[in-house]
Order: sequence, then C-alpha cells, then structure tokens
Amino acid sequence: MFSILRVNTVTGETRKETDNSKEVLLGGRTLSSRMVSKEIPAQCDPLGRQNKLFFCSGALAGTTASSCHRLSIGAKSPLTGGIKESNAGGILALRMAQQDLRCIVLEDAPAEDADWKIVVIGKDKTELVDGSFLEGKGVYEKSDLLTEKFGKRAGCVTIGPAAEKRLLASGLACSDPHGVCSRYAGRGGLGAVLASKRIIAMVVLDDAKIKPEYVDKDSFKQGAKKLITLLQENPVASKFTKYGTAAMVDICQALKVLPTRNFKHGTMEGAEKINAQTMYDTIKERGGEGRTQHACMPGCVIQCSNVYPEKDGTILCSPIEYETMALMGSNLCLTDLDAIAVMNRIANDAGVDTLDCGAAIGVAMEAGLAEFGDAKAAIRMMEEIRDATPLGRILGSGVKLAAKILGVRHAPHVLGQALPAYEPRGTKGMAMTYLSTPMGADHTFGFTLRDEEDPTTKEGKVALSKKFQVIGSRMDAMGMCNFVRYSVRDDMTPLLDLIKARYDVVITEEEFDDFVRETLRLEHQFNVDAGITAADYRFAETFYEEAQPETGEKIDITDAETAEARTW
Amino acid sequence: MFSILRVNTVTGETRKETDNSKEVLLGGRTLSSRMVSKEIPAQCDPLGRQNKLFFCSGALAGTTASSCHRLSIGAKSPLTGGIKESNAGGILALRMAQQDLRCIVLEDAPAEDADWKIVVIGKDKTELVDGSFLEGKGVYEKSDLLTEKFGKRAGCVTIGPAAEKRLLASGLACSDPHGVCSRYAGRGGLGAVLASKRIIAMVVLDDAKIKPEYVDKDSFKQGAKKLITLLQENPVASKFTKYGTAAMVDICQALKVLPTRNFKHGTMEGAEKINAQTMYDTIKERGGEGRTQHACMPGCVIQCSNVYPEKDGTILCSPIEYETMALMGSNLCLTDLDAIAVMNRIANDAGVDTLDCGAAIGVAMEAGLAEFGDAKAAIRMMEEIRDATPLGRILGSGVKLAAKILGVRHAPHVLGQALPAYEPRGTKGMAMTYLSTPMGADHTFGFTLRDEEDPTTKEGKVALSKKFQVIGSRMDAMGMCNFVRYSVRDDMTPLLDLIKARYDVVITEEEFDDFVRETLRLEHQFNVDAGITAADYRFAETFYEEAQPETGEKIDITDAETAEARTW
Repeated sequence: MFSILRVNTVTGETRKETDNSKEVLLGGRTLSSRMVSKEIPAQCDPLGRQNKLFFCSGALAGTTASSCHRLSIGAKSPLTGGIKESNAGGILALRMAQQDLRCIVLEDAPAEDADWKIVVIGKDKTELVDGSFLEGKGVYEKSDLLTEKFGKRAGCVTIGPAAEKRLLASGLACSDPHGVCSRYAGRGGLGAVLASKRIIAMVVLDDAKIKPEYVDKDSFKQGAKKLITLLQENPVASKFTKYGTAAMVDICQALKVLPTRNFKHGTMEGAEKINAQTMYDTIKERGGEGRTQHACMPGCVIQCSNVYPEKDGTILCSPIEYETMALMGSNLCLTDLDAIAVMNRIANDAGVDTLDCGAAIGVAMEAGLAEFGDAKAAIRMMEEIRDATPLGRILGSGVKLAAKILGVRHAPHVLGQALPAYEPRGTKGMAMTYLSTPMGADHTFGFTLRDEEDPTTKEGKVALSKKFQVIGSRMDAMGMCNFVRYSVRDDMTPLLDLIKARYDVVITEEEFDDFVRETLRLEHQFNVDAGITAADYRFAETFYEEAQPETGEKIDITDAETAEARTW
Repeated sequence: MFSILRVNTVTGETRKETDNSKEVLLGGRTLSSRMVSKEIPAQCDPLGRQNKLFFCSGALAGTTASSCHRLSIGAKSPLTGGIKESNAGGILALRMAQQDLRCIVLEDAPAEDADWKIVVIGKDKTELVDGSFLEGKGVYEKSDLLTEKFGKRAGCVTIGPAAEKRLLASGLACSDPHGVCSRYAGRGGLGAVLASKRIIAMVVLDDAKIKPEYVDKDSFKQGAKKLITLLQENPVASKFTKYGTAAMVDICQALKVLPTRNFKHGTMEGAEKINAQTMYDTIKERGGEGRTQHACMPGCVIQCSNVYPEKDGTILCSPIEYETMALMGSNLCLTDLDAIAVMNRIANDAGVDTLDCGAAIGVAMEAGLAEFGDAKAAIRMMEEIRDATPLGRILGSGVKLAAKILGVRHAPHVLGQALPAYEPRGTKGMAMTYLSTPMGADHTFGFTLRDEEDPTTKEGKVALSKKFQVIGSRMDAMGMCNFVRYSVRDDMTPLLDLIKARYDVVITEEEFDDFVRETLRLEHQFNVDAGITAADYRFAETFYEEAQPETGEKIDITDAETAEARTW
C-alpha cells in the first residue's frame, strides 16, 4: 500500500490515505497529473485556496536503481494558467520513500498576511512550525538555516525571495545530496504557489529510514546493474557524463537553432566561448571545488551535473545547464561563461527559473533597456529580479507578460512559458512539440532534435513529436531522470522488470504507455477546462511572419496540426 | 451612397468604396463591429499588421440633431484580446460627414522603427505626411501643433507618449469643438494600435464642408426639435446638464457601490468632498475659464462635460467624469478634487485611460507601493506612467497585467479591462453586465443601476442586463451619445424618424433592434474565435470568496447565467 499525506496549510491538520492502484505505484507525473486533474478546479486562481501542491515520488524511489529519484510536483500553474508538472532531482523523493510516502499534498491557503510556516514531516508527526526566520533570505542562506535546524540529511524544498513576492517565474528549490537546495523544479511558477499557502519550506526528516522491501531482491539487483550498463554504454547518456547538457551548445550552433538575440537568430558568433569544451577546460583549469561531473541524486551514474568554480576554485554556481547557457548566454549575445554563472547563481538564490528570466531579459534588451552583449546590464537585471524592483518584477513574471508590458511583439513563449534553447523556426520538430505540450514550451517533452532528418520541414513532424512525447513522458511517468530515456527508448522492459522485482506487479509496455497517453489526455483536458484554447497554442505572430536569417525558415505549422499533436 | 476610405499605412495608397446598405447607413458600432468581424483575423496580434482601425461616424453625423456626433472606433483590442468598439465625442465625426465619409480604415503596418506619419484627409487627396515633429510630446502639445499646422477646425485624432511606447491602456484623443484633443476613445488600448501602424495622428481637414442633403428637411427640423425637448424634459439627462456625470458620486455612495480602496469597499468616508455639488461649487467659486456645462460635440444640448479650473481660474482639466472621480478618487481613498484633476490631466496628456490607470494604481497601493489616500504618491505614479518608467509601464498596461506583476489577487477587471465605477458585489445587475459585454467591463453598456429593485440579488438580472444591453447599444449602433438613451428607451421612433427624414430610409424599431442584437452576436463570436472562453468572463476569485463589507454580498453569478446573458 502506498501512502498519501495531506496537510492543511491553514489548520495544520494532516490526514494519511493509502492506495494500492497502479497509478499511485507509478507515482511521478502519472500520479501528480491525475491528482491535479481530479482535485483542482480548473478555473481556480492558482494563487488562491483552491489550488493544491502535490509532491510525488516515483515507482523506484528509495531503491538502489540509478537515476530514479526525480520528484514530480503538480499544481495549477500561475505562469501558464494550465496544469503543471515540474520535476527536480535531489534527495526529497528518497526521503519521502524512507518515510513510506508516495505523495504529499498541501491544501488550502491562509490569509495573505499569515505568518510563514514550515511543513515538517517526520516519522512520528507532521506539523507546521514557525518559518519567519527564513523570510526574505536568499535560497543559499535558507538552505544553510534549514540544514542547521533540521540536519544536513533532511530533504528540503524551499523558495527564494522572488516567490515570497509572488513572482510568476519563481520555482521550488530542492536539496541535493550535500544538503544544498540547488535542484530546481523551476518552471511554471510553483514557488509562488507554495508562497501563496504561506509555506516557506517543507522538510522531510531523515528519521525514519524505511528501506524498500524487494519482492525479488536478486532480480532487482541484476536489473539495477543492467540499467547501469545500459546508461554507461549509451552514447548520448554517456556524453552527458563527461560534458553535461552543455554538449548541446555546439550541436545547436551547427543546426542553426541556438537562440540568439532574443530568438531572432539561430547562431551566435563566439559560441565556442561558452560551449561544453570551454566549460570543461575552465572547470579543470580552475580546480578547487569545481567538478565536471556531479550527481544530482544519490546513486545516479549519469552525473550530468557540474560545479562551476570561481577563479580561486570556490564554488560559483552548481549546476550550469545548457538551457541556461543559451537563454542567459547566446540569447543575450553574451560570450562570457563567468557572467552566465553569476546570473545563474543570482537566479538560484532569488529562486527564479533561469529560462524564463533569460528570455525576459532578451525581450528587455530588444525593448532597448540594455544592449545585447552587455553582461553587466544583464547581471544588474538579475539583481533587480532578486530585489523585486518594478523592472525586476516585470522580468520575473515570465516572458509573455514582460513582452506585453515592454511593448515587444517577438515574445518567445508558448502558454506563457519561455521557449527552451532550440530556436523553433529551425527545428520544426521541436516547434511542434512546443505547441503540443500541456505545460507550456518545454524541452524535456517530445525532444525530436536528435531525430529529425530535415529539421526545416514540418512534414512528418506531428508523428515524430508524438513519438517522442511518449518517450519523454515515460520517464516523468515513473519518476526517472529524463536522460534514462536514451537507453530504454526502444525497450522499456529494463525499468518495468525493476518494478516487478520490487513490487511483484506486472505492468506491460503496452499498459504503461496507456498510462502515459491517458496522462496526456487528462492534462490537455484540464487546460481546456481552464479556458486554454487553440489560440494559446501558438508562437508570437512574428515567428510566422519573419524568417530566421540563418535558415530562411518561418513557422508554418497550422492549428489543425498542433491539435492533432495534442490528441491522444 | 456612403463612402468608406481605406488607407494603407505602409504604402500610403488609398481606396474609396461606396456602399448603400443599412449597416453602413447606421454607421457607429453597427458598422465598426461588422468590419472588425469581417476583416480582422480574430487570432491576430493586435499590434501586428493584420489588425485594422475603423473610424465610423453615425447615421445622423453632419446633421443638426443633438448629440449625434459620436465616433465609433473599432479594432481588435490589445488590452482585452477581443473585439473593441470605443467611442468618443468631439468634431471628427462631423468633419468626416463634411467630407462625405462614413468610415475611414487604416490598414497594414510598417516596420516597428518606421518614421511616424500623419494621415491627412482632405477633399482633394489623402496622404501620409511626416509626423516626426509630434514624437514624444504630450497630447496637449500635440494638439497645439496639429491645430497650428492644419487649422483649429480640422478634426484630429492623436495619441500620447504612452501609446507611442505601446502601453496597453493608451487611448485615442479626438479634438473637441475648440480644437483640443481632449475627447477620448480611451478604452481597450486603441492608442497602441494606431501607434503600431506608426501613425501618430489622423487629421480630417475642414476643406470640404459638404452639407447633408435632407430628403424631408421640414420633418427633420421638427424631429430635431422634438429630440431637444425630449432631452431637456428627461429628468436623468437634464440632471447631467447641471452636474455632469459627477452626480453619480452620491448615488453610488448611497447604494454602497462606490469603488473604494481597490474595490474592497463600496463606500468612502468623505465622499462628499468629491461629489457633484462640491465640484459644481468649486468651479463656480473659482470662475475664470471654469465651466459647469460644456458640450463635447457641436449642437449637443445635454452638455454634460465641464471645465475644472485651477485656483487662479485657468483650465486645469476638461472634462472630469464620474468614472475618473471614482477610479482615481474613492478607489484610492483620495478626497481631494484638485489631486484627481491633476491625475486626470496627466492621464489626458500621456494619453491613457483614466479608469484602467486608476484601477492599476489601486492595485499598486494594495501591493504596498503607496498608502491609500496618499495623493502625492498617486500623482507620482501617473507621472511614471507618462514617463514610461518600469513602474509606469506596469501601471499603464491595464489592471489585469499590473495585478499579476505586482502579486495582487483582487484585480478589478473583466477581460483585462478595469471595472468601471460600480462595485459589482453591491449591484448584481452591473455585475451581470460586466460579465456579459464583449468589450471587457464597461459602463456604457447594459447600465442597470438605476433600474434594479434589489441590487444585491442576482434574481432577474440576466433579463434586466439584457434589456439594458440593448437600450445602451442602440445609441452606439447609430453614433448617438449614450445619454440620449434615457429619452428614447421606450420609444426609438424619434431617432428613426430623423433617419427617415434624412435619407428616406425606413428602419422599424424591430429591424433596428435586430441590427443591435446581430452586432452583439458578431462581437461575441469574434471573441470566441479569438480564444476567449467562459473562464475569461469572470471576476477575480476574491470577488466570489470575500464579502463586500458594507453589503455583505459576494458575487454569486454562475457561468451558465453569464453565458445566457451573452446569448443573442
């Protein structure tokens, strides 16, 4: 039986439910999206008392399998107005498993000026305790204060000052294996949702240490070993081990889809100054606390994360991901890795999504508030976001609103969520995917880029996008890291065998994909009920009217095609 | 035959069409909404080249009838994302009639950095001339420069610096009988639409002076006289003659629907300091250029407008309307008429809507950016709007966006357009109307307030709202001032007889109302096509959850009821 713990954020009352269904077994997005769909009125104010937050661990959480501790967080998004599942690495899913929890639900909301509370979940009790000592502090300081109070091994999730001030690009920061809240469920403004409940942090204590019971321990061991081999032998996953996601800089520059100058261009002169090799060499050269490999969750063999050091070897920022390097780098015409790292660090400390903020700064530069390439101005804008000045509030509210406020038409977003780092006019597969996801433009979903024969044509891209929508969603569906998908895309049995060995529950590939498709159906229906229409599943008009200079391409995808790509 | 003049804002090419249909005869909103519906792709970017602006005079424009020179301006609204008809008084409709024009259409849009142009329409030619000398200047200065160049009798429409900077609450300022661009089509962001076409002003010269041909001049004379009697004898319309719309302050305070403290309350202590009598006495006492009566268009006998003077008798602002007194006054807890007048003047000079800006400042005060009642802070915020600082951009982009950016849930708007000056929880009729109009919350449409037996109940309000939706829309439908409706609400024949005497065209009351209802149908359909759904025809959730203190009332109107109120 799997446990669901409900916490009322007004009264502090808690309630534990158990459920033995396969949906709850799978956990992850399978569970979070079902609960959002079932329990949240689609038209409610995302920052009101009717919204809820669901924290769901995955099917293999707590086990020794690699890359299995992603935490899916579900709610109605204040950024997109639709359903949201945002997932993060870190140790929270593991700690939940060790408390025998598949899901934690935060319900209701007190008055807007109620005292800040921390939800503390231990083996004996769950309670709301005073959180006022965290108020106004950056995520790094909050992180220190939380580990000081609850121990370095506690699984924490907290928010930055941006979320306290209800900025819509604010995320949730989850603690990594070192006790630092650096693993972000960054997208969709879920930080503001937690803040709207006057919860400034949630802590799952390390006081239970329940170990998973394996129905067939030997099989599980063998299966876990096999998964490691698959990950290590896979050329894509193994490349992430050396370079992390930064490997995409060169790939995207070559494909002419590296977002540059507010998504007006697809290549940047000097891109090699911020590519994976440069980052790798810089980290190696500076040494100290720098790391080219780093695991975001215990037991992961991919270790795509990194630690980027200052010149003196102390930590500057961890991790720096490709999406950030593009949105805060090439998109702003910055060719200085250190500047990108500083911006990333400010974003992590303020508790905002690097993609949404990078895109908003790009729009601000197009509006003439600073020159493209001006790193100092870009850093200053990040500081304004952290300080929630009027300009900072504009830039921290997502690129759609920022563009409206600043009078810029070329706003790179779908459903209000900033486009990830693949300029869509040059990759019609990714464009199709952006226009198809219920979550707003997203790169972990339907990632076609590596599999497009001709990225500049839309022919066949509905089917291709849908194929990869399923492949990507499978990982979220059971709380696995997205990068595992490369190793099991043609054969999910290695993972399904692990489920069988752990629980003695058989889920066939077909049945599993039925869950995945049904999740997508429920998510799209939630958005329809929330009032999102075909008119929202579009890029800004400029993407249809103005050709990307490098490829000569415009968006030529029709509403009918995207509707088909959203139909399951 | 009625003439429609099309002007391409890129090439300067013009094209004249003629049309003899009754829709074109009626002009006004009947014509503008039909043209928007027919010619503008509902999902286009309102600031892109596919949007158009339609300037439509009404059926009696150019004649000697009272109150017949309203100008209906149609487009897709960048503020609401839906259809917009915003109308204004002034002399433009008269000048159009004297050039034998029923409609002027501005099409296409040049590059965003193209030079500013002025559209100049004369009897011999229509051309785009250099408008760069107007750039960046306030509306008052633009107004002076325009009359200097084109003569005091030219009919002008221009924009303020707010529209040049694409603020979404920016309006269109039309010249009054004195040649001052002070008559605003303020709502829906149409100023930004004109600016997006790089047109900084449009001028209809006074060089044609074509007089209307009356098919039956004697009947027309008698009919026009009869209309004057009806207006002068009507108790409501005649009250406007003495006090203007300011008479509503006391009425709304008594009904507990005077928006106060960001629409949290329905009464304000000290409301008498900003009521009609105080304004009347102040104007009389200060004398000089002050006027308690003032006609916004030639030949109007209602003369509801006013001129509010400085202490030394020079003009401070003209006009000051009730909606402004409430949104910039009681809504901000200001009890100082002079402060309201200063804010109003800045708004007129910056070229922004006073309602949308007042509501946004209320939200900013709730967000803690200033104290309610702080007149200096409120004036400073208006200056920031004029200067388009980051805060000014937030406040000048409409209250929906401002509230999202500033983290305020109690956002007083429907479809992004600020609520007019009737707190909806205390008047369920007006609430129903706000939720039913295709234009976003609006007070000139479905004005039930004077006819609600029990304003606190929603019983019967669908029917009541619909009844007054038709009564109000009839005036827009033929370019008459909204205040004429009190005199003809039970019998439209006085106006239809004038049409017959002018054109020898018979339009029965039934046929006329068919046009009105069909207009509403087309408008609602445009919004559906634009992606506006039932989820948008709602107040902020707080209006449903928190009772208004004075009446104890919440909004209890359902989606089904508002859908019925929008069905024609």
